[in-house]
Amino acid sequence: MDHALVYAHEAALVGEVPVGAVVLGPDGTVVAVGRNEVEACHDASAHAELLAMRRAAQRLGTPRLLGCTVVVTLEPCAMCAAAMVHFRCERVVFGAYDPKGGGVEHGARVFERPGCLHVPEVIGGVRERASAQILRDFFRQLRARS
Amino acid sequence: MDHALVYAHEAALVGEVPVGAVVLGPDGTVVAVGRNEVEACHDASAHAELLAMRRAAQRLGTPRLLGCTVVVTLEPCAMCAAAMVHFRCERVVFGAYDPKGGGVEHGARVFERPGCLHVPEVIGGVRERASAQILRDFFRQLRARS
Repeated sequence: MDHALVYAHEAALVGEVPVGAVVLGPDGTVVAVGRNEVEACHDASAHAELLAMRRAAQRLGTPRLLGCTVVVTLEPCAMCAAAMVHFRCERVVFGAYDPKGGGVEHGARVFERPGCLHVPEVIGGVRERASAQILRDFFRQLRARS
Repeated sequence: MDHALVYAHEAALVGEVPVGAVVLGPDGTVVAVGRNEVEACHDASAHAELLAMRRAAQRLGTPRLLGCTVVVTLEPCAMCAAAMVHFRCERVVFGAYDPKGGGVEHGARVFERPGCLHVPEVIGGVRERASAQILRDFFRQLRARS
């Protein structure tokens, strides 16, 4: 999660919502990383964990991330949670909970829907305070500027 | 929808699940198109409508597809439905209903969740039979080959 937090900080530095992600292979080595790039890429789907999963799949040469773990500083939204189903990720570890935008423990609760084709293991609240603090700082500065 | 069906057929020809999509601008002109590219791109998120939305946003130079309509031959999954929220699409028109994989009228029912930040207008079942038939033909041929 420390590694993912580095990418969250990097996002904040360039004015993106500070969320960072890392995809780990079955042996625990880093396969790919990502941070939010919504504004820079003009792509509302360019969330940290979706970019990291896409890059990991590219690198592994398969659309399935079997045995892989996605580590992300914020609870995934419904889009990213559903993408984890499509990518067949084995595990998702996230930092801060997101009652408004989350789709794992909140909102659509994608993995809890009957018939969900693949349900990753979920570990939430890892480095929760640090992950939430960087988001709070970012939005406080944003409000102060506007 | 006829335009989207052309791209669904194109997907089938190259061995991808035959779903096609078109993004229309506020004036009804085509901004971007897409078809499933999951296998070719090694990207489980490369669904027709997500690719079309990303391309449309690129072309318009903004991560928001305000006033735009997404036309897609199959009911969007939860990932694509949630992406439509992020992209702020005004309307989604889809062909076949998808009781197993859909996330609009089935499963996560993304737009119906309390607190959903943006709810597009939904028109389902347009050219439903043609949209479903191409999927049925594809999977029948796939089974016959295996």
